Amino acid sequence: MPKRIVAFGEVMMRLQVPGYELLSQANTLQYSFSGTGVNVASAMTKLGHDGYLVTMLPDNPLGDSAISALQRLGIGRDYISRGGKYMGMYFLENGFGQRASRVTYSNRLESSFNTATLTDYDMDMISEKTDIIHFCGITLAMAENVRESMKVLARKVKEQGGTVCFDCNYRPSLWEGGYADAKPHYEEMLSLADIVMMNEKDALYILGMKSEGSTREEQLVELIPEVAKRFKIQSIAGTHRSINSDNSHTLRGYIYKEETFYFSDILSFSVYDRIGSGDAYTSGILHGELLGYSPEKTVRFAAVSGMLACTVVGDTPLATEKEILSAMEGKMEDIKR
Amino acid sequence: MPKRIVAFGEVMMRLQVPGYELLSQANTLQYSFSGTGVNVASAMTKLGHDGYLVTMLPDNPLGDSAISALQRLGIGRDYISRGGKYMGMYFLENGFGQRASRVTYSNRLESSFNTATLTDYDMDMISEKTDIIHFCGITLAMAENVRESMKVLARKVKEQGGTVCFDCNYRPSLWEGGYADAKPHYEEMLSLADIVMMNEKDALYILGMKSEGSTREEQLVELIPEVAKRFKIQSIAGTHRSINSDNSHTLRGYIYKEETFYFSDILSFSVYDRIGSGDAYTSGILHGELLGYSPEKTVRFAAVSGMLACTVVGDTPLATEKEILSAMEGKMEDIKR
Amino acid sequence: MPKRIVAFGEVMMRLQVPGYELLSQANTLQYSFSGTGVNVASAMTKLGHDGYLVTMLPDNPLGDSAISALQRLGIGRDYISRGGKYMGMYFLENGFGQRASRVTYSNRLESSFNTATLTDYDMDMISEKTDIIHFCGITLAMAENVRESMKVLARKVKEQGGTVCFDCNYRPSLWEGGYADAKPHYEEMLSLADIVMMNEKDALYILGMKSEGSTREEQLVELIPEVAKRFKIQSIAGTHRSINSDNSHTLRGYIYKEETFYFSDILSFSVYDRIGSGDAYTSGILHGELLGYSPEKTVRFAAVSGMLACTVVGDTPLATEKEILSAMEGKMEDIKR
Amino acid sequence: MPKRIVAFGEVMMRLQVPGYELLSQANTLQYSFSGTGVNVASAMTKLGHDGYLVTMLPDNPLGDSAISALQRLGIGRDYISRGGKYMGMYFLENGFGQRASRVTYSNRLESSFNTATLTDYDMDMISEKTDIIHFCGITLAMAENVRESMKVLARKVKEQGGTVCFDCNYRPSLWEGGYADAKPHYEEMLSLADIVMMNEKDALYILGMKSEGSTREEQLVELIPEVAKRFKIQSIAGTHRSINSDNSHTLRGYIYKEETFYFSDILSFSVYDRIGSGDAYTSGILHGELLGYSPEKTVRFAAVSGMLACTVVGDTPLATEKEILSAMEGKMEDIKR
Amino acid sequence: MPKRIVAFGEVMMRLQVPGYELLSQANTLQYSFSGTGVNVASAMTKLGHDGYLVTMLPDNPLGDSAISALQRLGIGRDYISRGGKYMGMYFLENGFGQRASRVTYSNRLESSFNTATLTDYDMDMISEKTDIIHFCGITLAMAENVRESMKVLARKVKEQGGTVCFDCNYRPSLWEGGYADAKPHYEEMLSLADIVMMNEKDALYILGMKSEGSTREEQLVELIPEVAKRFKIQSIAGTHRSINSDNSHTLRGYIYKEETFYFSDILSFSVYDRIGSGDAYTSGILHGELLGYSPEKTVRFAAVSGMLACTVVGDTPLATEKEILSAMEGKMEDIKR
Amino acid sequence: MPKRIVAFGEVMMRLQVPGYELLSQANTLQYSFSGTGVNVASAMTKLGHDGYLVTMLPDNPLGDSAISALQRLGIGRDYISRGGKYMGMYFLENGFGQRASRVTYSNRLESSFNTATLTDYDMDMISEKTDIIHFCGITLAMAENVRESMKVLARKVKEQGGTVCFDCNYRPSLWEGGYADAKPHYEEMLSLADIVMMNEKDALYILGMKSEGSTREEQLVELIPEVAKRFKIQSIAGTHRSINSDNSHTLRGYIYKEETFYFSDILSFSVYDRIGSGDAYTSGILHGELLGYSPEKTVRFAAVSGMLACTVVGDTPLATEKEILSAMEGKMEDIKR
Repeated sequence: MPKRIVAFGEVMMRLQVPGYELLSQANTLQYSFSGTGVNVASAMTKLGHDGYLVTMLPDNPLGDSAISALQRLGIGRDYISRGGKYMGMYFLENGFGQRASRVTYSNRLESSFNTATLTDYDMDMISEKTDIIHFCGITLAMAENVRESMKVLARKVKEQGGTVCFDCNYRPSLWEGGYADAKPHYEEMLSLADIVMMNEKDALYILGMKSEGSTREEQLVELIPEVAKRFKIQSIAGTHRSINSDNSHTLRGYIYKEETFYFSDILSFSVYDRIGSGDAYTSGILHGELLGYSPEKTVRFAAVSGMLACTVVGDTPLATEKEILSAMEGKMEDIKR
Repeated sequence: MPKRIVAFGEVMMRLQVPGYELLSQANTLQYSFSGTGVNVASAMTKLGHDGYLVTMLPDNPLGDSAISALQRLGIGRDYISRGGKYMGMYFLENGFGQRASRVTYSNRLESSFNTATLTDYDMDMISEKTDIIHFCGITLAMAENVRESMKVLARKVKEQGGTVCFDCNYRPSLWEGGYADAKPHYEEMLSLADIVMMNEKDALYILGMKSEGSTREEQLVELIPEVAKRFKIQSIAGTHRSINSDNSHTLRGYIYKEETFYFSDILSFSVYDRIGSGDAYTSGILHGELLGYSPEKTVRFAAVSGMLACTVVGDTPLATEKEILSAMEGKMEDIKR
Repeated sequence: MPKRIVAFGEVMMRLQVPGYELLSQANTLQYSFSGTGVNVASAMTKLGHDGYLVTMLPDNPLGDSAISALQRLGIGRDYISRGGKYMGMYFLENGFGQRASRVTYSNRLESSFNTATLTDYDMDMISEKTDIIHFCGITLAMAENVRESMKVLARKVKEQGGTVCFDCNYRPSLWEGGYADAKPHYEEMLSLADIVMMNEKDALYILGMKSEGSTREEQLVELIPEVAKRFKIQSIAGTHRSINSDNSHTLRGYIYKEETFYFSDILSFSVYDRIGSGDAYTSGILHGELLGYSPEKTVRFAAVSGMLACTVVGDTPLATEKEILSAMEGKMEDIKR
Repeated sequence: MPKRIVAFGEVMMRLQVPGYELLSQANTLQYSFSGTGVNVASAMTKLGHDGYLVTMLPDNPLGDSAISALQRLGIGRDYISRGGKYMGMYFLENGFGQRASRVTYSNRLESSFNTATLTDYDMDMISEKTDIIHFCGITLAMAENVRESMKVLARKVKEQGGTVCFDCNYRPSLWEGGYADAKPHYEEMLSLADIVMMNEKDALYILGMKSEGSTREEQLVELIPEVAKRFKIQSIAGTHRSINSDNSHTLRGYIYKEETFYFSDILSFSVYDRIGSGDAYTSGILHGELLGYSPEKTVRFAAVSGMLACTVVGDTPLATEKEILSAMEGKMEDIKR
Repeated sequence: MPKRIVAFGEVMMRLQVPGYELLSQANTLQYSFSGTGVNVASAMTKLGHDGYLVTMLPDNPLGDSAISALQRLGIGRDYISRGGKYMGMYFLENGFGQRASRVTYSNRLESSFNTATLTDYDMDMISEKTDIIHFCGITLAMAENVRESMKVLARKVKEQGGTVCFDCNYRPSLWEGGYADAKPHYEEMLSLADIVMMNEKDALYILGMKSEGSTREEQLVELIPEVAKRFKIQSIAGTHRSINSDNSHTLRGYIYKEETFYFSDILSFSVYDRIGSGDAYTSGILHGELLGYSPEKTVRFAAVSGMLACTVVGDTPLATEKEILSAMEGKMEDIKR
Repeated sequence: MPKRIVAFGEVMMRLQVPGYELLSQANTLQYSFSGTGVNVASAMTKLGHDGYLVTMLPDNPLGDSAISALQRLGIGRDYISRGGKYMGMYFLENGFGQRASRVTYSNRLESSFNTATLTDYDMDMISEKTDIIHFCGITLAMAENVRESMKVLARKVKEQGGTVCFDCNYRPSLWEGGYADAKPHYEEMLSLADIVMMNEKDALYILGMKSEGSTREEQLVELIPEVAKRFKIQSIAGTHRSINSDNSHTLRGYIYKEETFYFSDILSFSVYDRIGSGDAYTSGILHGELLGYSPEKTVRFAAVSGMLACTVVGDTPLATEKEILSAMEGKMEDIKR
């Protein structure tokens, strides 16, 4: 019996210049629709669950197009409200080598999602059947009305026996007042959450905790248990990731659960499109938790899920459980016939 | 010696689905940059003059891309200010037969151009060297700050001996308060203008004039002389256009000047992209006036210019004086070798 | 409350040469997935209902791709079985003027759908919640195992109180034994059906009926009531269509219901892609019946639905109820802003 | 047993802007290789014969690419010499409606073909096995070295019992000295030719003949028999063609043979790409002559061949004998399944 | 005087998703036609010989398209039969990094080639003029009728004094009964062959031979001479190849001839498309044998040929003799002007 | 106040096969317009100056297209003459790994630029306002008429107080008579130049100087000061560059000024398109000189400019001053939001 995984978040239209040209050189764009919530709902669908998105989209051809794209990924349209006027959009120019990629946003704060209020969603219906609800820190940064919907929804799902997942995902540019502004909202979400995606920096900077550790690893093992205790969080997971000079990435996943830390192997791999890899990791954690994998297996599954997400086009993870399990066995094949 | 033709107006980014797919079917867009001012400045450049645009564009990759596009058309970048945050954008899905084309706008009122104020432009420098300045009714509809810049610039150019051209171009959806709101602003612009693009409907609805005529033609010849007289306008020109069932158009141009009406032949022709045809007509009128063509020749030149603009891809007229004069001789060639 | 519309049929992969090149000239193909069932389920979804497809697809990347495409159209994946080995495919080269389009099939009889048997589907689950089930004559022509599934499903839906729709859609090339082979199967389906898509030729050739009429119209009004009576069919509908020399089509819809014939206006219109127009018409009929439109409105709604389907890219109708109602008012717009 | 049809002529690289953009708007080109000789050799191959081209191409990647393209069409590479430095090229911008197509040439006179001399070809080997050799007036206009090769080859083929076909195809822009310069060369080719493509204008202007007739038809039937007699030509064929206002063409073919004129029906049809239609007509005539069709059938076959060539992409005719015969029966099909 | 190289084998239609998207993400495909026989015949043509293919293709637009593609490569159409109903096809999704490429086949066993029997080919005509005939183990695996044609053709060519080349190319998935089924057929082909492509694994697993060697190299030098002796084979050649972690390949060629082993240098190089590299190696061996190169030169020529085949788009080797000889001198150039 | 930077040189049309296909495989080309002068003028415009090009282009659609492309880059059209008949063109096939890129030229010597003479340019107008004029050795190699224009223009600019920049850029294939032919012309240009781009090889081979040094570096520091002294050159700059096996490049810039050598760091970086990197380096030197940067900063600025030019599509450098300064700080960013 598939579980119902529901994500709350904005759908962004991504308008990407093909190849490596700049906007001032090209004349075509490829468009797609993504967002952390989209990625998680889609990834969970590929893993065999039923993914849904709680969002609001304008009732115009852009909104229609977004819904078609979400459905293509297998995400259910039942919890999508229509209203407001605009879609959040960004333009992406791919970098190459020493030249960084560039992102140019449209006016995101006026999007349908960011102007929607509590009454735009049927929170009771949504929370009733939801096994896991997923939120992220980007959404938390948006606007007071969005934060209100987010917290109400988290509470209702919790009341109905669902699991609340919160991905800290702090983006400095989105919080005008910096960590001080963010802190109370993060604390509220953490106290509502059962599963949290977080690393030692979130603890240090957002929560203002102190650490004796001098390496990331030392800080991590010192702070995360403290956070789990303080906010009564069932599982805290995340990754340490680094970019190598030859465009490959190195990733190591961890999960802290029942007062124990579990780490994945350190994976190194070529990267086609790194966006969405974190959401694939999150989905791997949620899948492991739902199926009652051992923490060891969960963290390995999640790390490989994050790695494979870097090998596909676009933000959205596409690997199935079978493909991830097969990649965990580690045989690199040339061609699958 | 080429003349300096300056247009004041917004640059819009046009994001068009290729072919006849809907946004929900496709995954690529073609983008270009246009607007009435862009079209007139570009058309005048093709006719041998130096075209400039007074506008404001964001200082980001979208703004850079717009400037590259304007330069490609030969428009000078000297009067383009950089600032504000966003570009006006619209998505275009091509209609077919009984299915109309659809346009979906982004939040245009927050664009750099529509948030720019008088001090964002160096009006003195601009007005000093301008032979003709061009404004249009779409710009007039935008916002009070835009209207102010527009009127100040018109006045300064007039003071410096330049010619002011105003294209009425009334768009009902842009005036919340309808004709009543628009009227005083139109009257102010008409009293500043030397050359006006206008038809009988503008006189009836915007200016609230009355006519005994029962046909468009009767109303036209009754009302336009009255307008010219009231606002002391040197030349008033425009077109009557109709769409035929086989996708061809019919167009007849007119100019009223020195108390006389002159009409072009009635032209019928196949249409590839009708947008920008009116701006090509305007450019033909301005070119005829600048070169001292007879009114008969001016109106024929302008009408053929409008016709040829319907045969090229995109909004922007591309015909040269030589090509228009050759087409006026009316020989339809199969292939030019 | 949306209704559940379920179609039973094969999903075909369409591999189309872009533009007007032949396969021997080009090197790229555009692919999509369609079929009568797909078209009807999709069209009903656009009209506000929940569309489902009962079919079998191979458990490989082609099957995955088909499901993504169906989901994009809003069709639910719940009744799609996975198994068998192949997808039905056809290659399409677009004709131009005097040169006809060409279709080249792969080995369709070995497709997953055509090798599936009764036990590959959960007929009880499907029939339980279905408001309308749709079948067509193409499916009926395929193979005995397919026909068996079809008839069992029709019966079960009927037993559960659902409505059975059957579209005769006779394709001579698919019946080796000709009308004689087809007749008993058509009779069985007609006796199970509540709503039937059929014209006078089906009655004459498949059922072997005789008519005194010399025109299509005379034969229609003579034979259809007889069929309705003999098979106790609630509504019989269809179209008369002709192709004009300038590539436009003319279409007139009819519905026979409660012993009365109702006809739509004769519509003439430009055609972009005629495939799927009949399925759009069917969907219009089903929508009218579901919502209790008057027969006059139903037939007009269906005819306009069929017309609009000719203006979009691909086989699958995309018009919403609002768009069809707006087109019924007959105002042809140039651009919808 | 297939016949060997050999054409002598230049291969031109065609660089075409896709769609309707101008060179100054676009950034991609489609390239192909064509020419009258290519078209005739290719068309004859499609009709079941073995087509060859006598030409010279540079020994560089452009020449390799041209050979690949010719081979794709089924033309044999045996008589293609390699040498010289350049390919003839032209850029093509498609016109639309009142805007004519534009062709811009590279320096054609320096091409490998136009700088090749008699010794660059193995004329003995070529002439030995050739059933029909085809020449055209464009080649005749090029340069003295080209004319010499042409005449030597015609003579050798004639000596070996082959048939010589000459297509007058007079292009004013290629003859600096006008008709006076051309006349002696045309007369020499006509006296060598067995089958000639020609119309009344060629007789009037090139040969300087006089006619009493006032219509094209009257002039044709007066002059062509005279030409046939004077130069002892077995068959003279050609077409009268006109362009209609709706972009369709009208065509009527004729052949004069054994002192009798035969005309095809007047065909009217939509045109996708008119280039190469004349060469398709020529091929139809040659095919009819080779197979001993009656003159009535030959002229009808050729006219339909010319019509179908207007329905395919590119210059090169692609219809098979079966397709032409089927089109002669005149049933317009919608889709061939 | 060019030699006639004839290959016997199936033409497969390859339908490839462009870039790195999955079938469920994309909507276009690039198609081409390939196969071991196609590759060898084409490569030999590029090396200056006349390449032919013995195969059967359906008499429909897919078959026409395949023939156009073969001709483009310079392969003669003389030995291609038309008949049967289908083309073998496969879909290819490119892998990236840890994600393997995926191949999905259509029903290959029903293809024209795999249903063709002895009488579908004119074996006498083919064998009469053939200098070298090429077969491969993939074809041997297909069906009994195919094997029969293969063996008859090998015998006839041998009788006429031609050389028989056999490439073992064992694909486990194609032999239901495994090595035991394959063995007698391989033995029969080996006893007919003069030149064989084979490695130590073929000897161990197919022929069931035993080796004392512990490395591939030791097994190779022990077993291959034994095979050559047992089956009286003139030359046995092959490669040892490995994939490096940075996507480059390492390749070393060998040939065993006149009781001596010759090895090429070990080559390491970047790979664009590895398919067809083995066929390029085979072609290099055949070319060296035909031209009487020393075995040392032959094996180096073949290895470089295999390397260069990895640098071009598509399966089919495109390097000329001159290019291979130039690459053997080992100067890596940046740009050839 | 922006400076006027004027380059004298040919505009070449580049016709590039997309991706890695050969001309004989593909059917589309991407076209752009470039050349050393274009690159320098464009790069200086991006750095905030006003760039102009002195050249001649044909008065046809190719010339129009070139001008549009130059304008798009921001280059002023004021000094572009129209006349002559042809554009210089080259076809580019991208290499991969061991397969080198291939360039095939059209007949460049007949281009408008190479047939233009002194009177085709208004040298007085050009020289009057020019701050820096740029020449290069490719232009010097073309034809006597071109050399004459070049030298006259250099002299006139010098007389008017402008700075003359000369880039040695010796291309062996362009000088039939080798170094001996080139020497006097180079000496003349060097004696006119203030800023020179040159390395030790130019001194050794063109000027025939001798060096004791055994490494490039030793030769450089020995010879360049001698050259500067002999020809009274203010600054001599250049780069030492090498290609690494993994397709990355290593670059070190130098400038010799006021009797001192300054070197940049050694930069290693991935390369997307190496063409135009040298021109970007030149532009960096000119910019540093114009703004009075210290020589240390100038050479670092130029080297980073050259590096960034390798990361963009096409020949033409696109980095702004801000982007170069930011890259000089050396922080590699992943995405700029």
